[in-house]
Amino acid sequence: MKYSKIPVARSIVTLCVAKNIKHVVISPGSRNAPLTIGFTHHPEIKPYSIVDERCAGFFALGMAQQLHEPVVLVCTSGSALLNYYPAIAEAFYSDIPLVIISADRPIERIDIGDGQTIRQKNVFENHILYSANLYSELVLENELQDSKLQQKQFEARKHNEREINLALNKAIEEQGPVHINVPFYEPLYDTVENITVNPLEILPEILNRNYASNELQPYADIWNAAKRKMIIVGVAQPNLVEQEILDKLAEDDSVIVFTETTSNLHQHNFFTRIDTLIGPIEKEVDPSELFKKLQPEILLTFGGFIVSKKIKAFLRKYQPAHHWHIDKKKAYNTFFCLNKHFETEVNSFFTNFLPLKKEVESDYAKFWQNIHVQRQKRHEEYMAEIPYSDLKAMQLVVPHVPEHTVIEFGNSSTIRYAQLFEWDKSMKIFCNRGTSGIDGSVSTAVGAAVAQKNPVLLITGDLSFFYDSNALWNNYIPNNFRIIVLNNQGGGIFRILPGNKNSENFETYFETVHDLKAKPLCELYKLDYFLATSEEEIEQSLVEFFSTSSRPKLLEIMTPRKINDEVLLKYFGFIKT
Amino acid sequence: MKYSKIPVARSIVTLCVAKNIKHVVISPGSRNAPLTIGFTHHPEIKPYSIVDERCAGFFALGMAQQLHEPVVLVCTSGSALLNYYPAIAEAFYSDIPLVIISADRPIERIDIGDGQTIRQKNVFENHILYSANLYSELVLENELQDSKLQQKQFEARKHNEREINLALNKAIEEQGPVHINVPFYEPLYDTVENITVNPLEILPEILNRNYASNELQPYADIWNAAKRKMIIVGVAQPNLVEQEILDKLAEDDSVIVFTETTSNLHQHNFFTRIDTLIGPIEKEVDPSELFKKLQPEILLTFGGFIVSKKIKAFLRKYQPAHHWHIDKKKAYNTFFCLNKHFETEVNSFFTNFLPLKKEVESDYAKFWQNIHVQRQKRHEEYMAEIPYSDLKAMQLVVPHVPEHTVIEFGNSSTIRYAQLFEWDKSMKIFCNRGTSGIDGSVSTAVGAAVAQKNPVLLITGDLSFFYDSNALWNNYIPNNFRIIVLNNQGGGIFRILPGNKNSENFETYFETVHDLKAKPLCELYKLDYFLATSEEEIEQSLVEFFSTSSRPKLLEIMTPRKINDEVLLKYFGFIKT
Repeated sequence: MKYSKIPVARSIVTLCVAKNIKHVVISPGSRNAPLTIGFTHHPEIKPYSIVDERCAGFFALGMAQQLHEPVVLVCTSGSALLNYYPAIAEAFYSDIPLVIISADRPIERIDIGDGQTIRQKNVFENHILYSANLYSELVLENELQDSKLQQKQFEARKHNEREINLALNKAIEEQGPVHINVPFYEPLYDTVENITVNPLEILPEILNRNYASNELQPYADIWNAAKRKMIIVGVAQPNLVEQEILDKLAEDDSVIVFTETTSNLHQHNFFTRIDTLIGPIEKEVDPSELFKKLQPEILLTFGGFIVSKKIKAFLRKYQPAHHWHIDKKKAYNTFFCLNKHFETEVNSFFTNFLPLKKEVESDYAKFWQNIHVQRQKRHEEYMAEIPYSDLKAMQLVVPHVPEHTVIEFGNSSTIRYAQLFEWDKSMKIFCNRGTSGIDGSVSTAVGAAVAQKNPVLLITGDLSFFYDSNALWNNYIPNNFRIIVLNNQGGGIFRILPGNKNSENFETYFETVHDLKAKPLCELYKLDYFLATSEEEIEQSLVEFFSTSSRPKLLEIMTPRKINDEVLLKYFGFIKT
Repeated sequence: MKYSKIPVARSIVTLCVAKNIKHVVISPGSRNAPLTIGFTHHPEIKPYSIVDERCAGFFALGMAQQLHEPVVLVCTSGSALLNYYPAIAEAFYSDIPLVIISADRPIERIDIGDGQTIRQKNVFENHILYSANLYSELVLENELQDSKLQQKQFEARKHNEREINLALNKAIEEQGPVHINVPFYEPLYDTVENITVNPLEILPEILNRNYASNELQPYADIWNAAKRKMIIVGVAQPNLVEQEILDKLAEDDSVIVFTETTSNLHQHNFFTRIDTLIGPIEKEVDPSELFKKLQPEILLTFGGFIVSKKIKAFLRKYQPAHHWHIDKKKAYNTFFCLNKHFETEVNSFFTNFLPLKKEVESDYAKFWQNIHVQRQKRHEEYMAEIPYSDLKAMQLVVPHVPEHTVIEFGNSSTIRYAQLFEWDKSMKIFCNRGTSGIDGSVSTAVGAAVAQKNPVLLITGDLSFFYDSNALWNNYIPNNFRIIVLNNQGGGIFRILPGNKNSENFETYFETVHDLKAKPLCELYKLDYFLATSEEEIEQSLVEFFSTSSRPKLLEIMTPRKINDEVLLKYFGFIKT
């Protein structure tokens, strides 16, 4: 074994291992050598090396998203760590545990003109659960011969150990990003054979609040008096809720449950495609009648962010009398009417709440089920007649995706298209909806693929793909990793938004039209490349694309740039009747 | 003409134009539409569209570095703006004016679960000169009919106008990055034909402190009593100091002047290659004798960061009795002995100081001039005998670079190699030494090339190049732009640092070995590609490489990965005698 001679570096490694951290993503540098040496030699750590810190950040995020345990990022001092910020913000809003450990120069070297030196202390303050700012530990030959120095060193070390514990615990307890900043004196490369630190260990505290019947009874009374209850599930980890609970909710005539592609919940009575229900109502001459019929008395939500803009707009206008959210950590006032946060796990809530629930006579669920069935039928009819486009391409892809695939969607139009389709319930579906950025989709998917045994498929637009193409500069991509790039030569989403589309100005500054193809990147990073430019070519290529191989594969689907907005916007009018 | 219906967007455009801002780099988004519409339609603004905000940030930095005037960056809300942070930190430390304008959602939409929404307020706090947090202005149909609302709107607008002024002025006055955060309500795409805002305008204040003789006399007395005065110039803009002043300093026997490649100062008596002087002394059995002879009584510095680690280490140990720094804005205590900051421009300082200066008898300059001449001779001898390597490749490149080329160097080994050579004084030389990151070298060079009439050449290592390859996703690259990639298949700098080089662990986590070539990226982004793998091929390719063409060109020089450290480390021992 080989560990840094600097004790704080050994304490960090020891405490990470003690807290069951297994994956450490390292970007190259010299100031972080004490950490790199320690993490890469420890038998219980799996290290990864990624040069571009922006990609490293999202790669770690993708891993942690799958593993539900903190993944560590290690980088050198200076601007290196700023490149983590987009991934940190995503982790902050998506509740994904990341531990950022940045090497730093000692405090007296900051703002004096040294290279790779910035103000690292609290630099992520707006989007971090904890910032541990450590002291630099000196390693002196005669340390033990001076008792005053010895005591000072001892105190600094103990301070550091506590801070490291608190940061790591926060990441575990609250599932989010934390930052540990460690200043190191030179020499940085000296090693010892044994880890021989025995740091203070503080156990993380996992709170499980359990609501008693008498606490829940007032809410159950409100629930039982209401004839229209709507449940909406945002982004959620697979298996968040027991099937028995879902089934009980599904059979209640006064309850409708809206899920999204990213909810990873499956029950045949649930409304899986929110926009196919809401979108056509918006197209009515007077939508208010139907919206009032849909307006719930009680809205119960759980899970993370909701992709559908339509449901947000609807509920912000047709507000429920009550909005309750179930989540251990936080509750967002998404619809401006939140009046109860149940601070507990979803299973625990329902286990305690369902026994208090009574049958309520209502036609709420049935009425909307009927409309939902009609909409599905019209959806199929529309799909059968539309021209070759993004929507068509997505339709062709859906049935070919193998069972048990983990799908990562890029932002922003891709995930919105995905929401219009049914995906097999053996699949697990993810998308970076915390900040909804286009900046790290590819790296996140690569990280997920490394953490997952099942094959991972990324479906992304062209801007997201090229933005994060450095993600493929990665030695860990498994051979079963697949990417589908829907290349419409620009930011197709902007054509769907308001604004004047028929100008060079629009094409340059909004749509940002380009003629890039993914092929050279596949050559550079050694992926098998497939190209499809028509329905037939998509059908032809998909079988081979999903077959096993000795390299990852990328399928680029070229779609016509200018008709996608029309195809999508007409969709909601068509399925209305 | 076409401007946003939202008045604050028009105020921003108007005030930017009023302050002579001409260049605006826009990344695509919807929330920033009011700004994009305004900036792209104004006849006095030259807009640019760049998708990857990290590249956009450095592209703007490269432009502002050449123009010495603020360049504006505009992006949408969410993680988009976090991608600017590496460029902002570089601008902060390199004193380059950048104006970051981020669109935001109104405050009540933050942390409620909306997409592309983060905590943007003060998010760059650690590295920004000013953060203007604007109010959202409402555009209401009946605004003018309600006098209370009218007054509220008026006050908010006037607050915004003042904040915009203060931010823009700060960027101009102190030459650094500022952030304007603008929340916008929807609708975002409504326009009016005329700009019709007449915002409050506050003129920037350009202070020029002029030291009087009686203020300078005490320092002149110290100066005139000292026999050993050292001047060191860090990163500096070309033509910072008048030649007459430089000539006067050069003829003083008690003064030696150290400049760096990035100092952009030329006088034949100056010591242009610090490391060739200091490096060999370090190799002496007892360096203290020579170092004591070199130790100055007074150290006078100006310019920005100093690349040479050797001079820093020397002066931190062999401290001068006085360290004075000349700069309008800031003075770093780089050598831990700074005792005077002359807060003025360099020309102004010397114009007032030189008349007070007296002749001092000293052999200081002559002694070191002699050694310098010997070192130059040994340098030539060494260069003649070394094998094919990074150092050799750099030597071959130097004489081929056309006169008047603007050279941008990548971090970190490339700029260090560059410092060992003489570059023609018609050239202007730049490197991102503020944070010394590898993260934006290519984008900075592209930005410089767009702002420069003269041809721009980027010389970079492979890690820097691939890290920032998205820089080439850019429609503005002039045909005379050139890139030389010194590809030693990894981070060669790490071989020069301490640590165990002969292990897989080293190669993976420090050197980060790869087998990438730039060719596919040239294909993707339409650059002419040249490859050289030997001295002969370098010589052969350079002539055509520098010839005019209808596309930008990239020359990739492959060097052997493992001998570069040895070639460099032996250099200093060799030139010692």
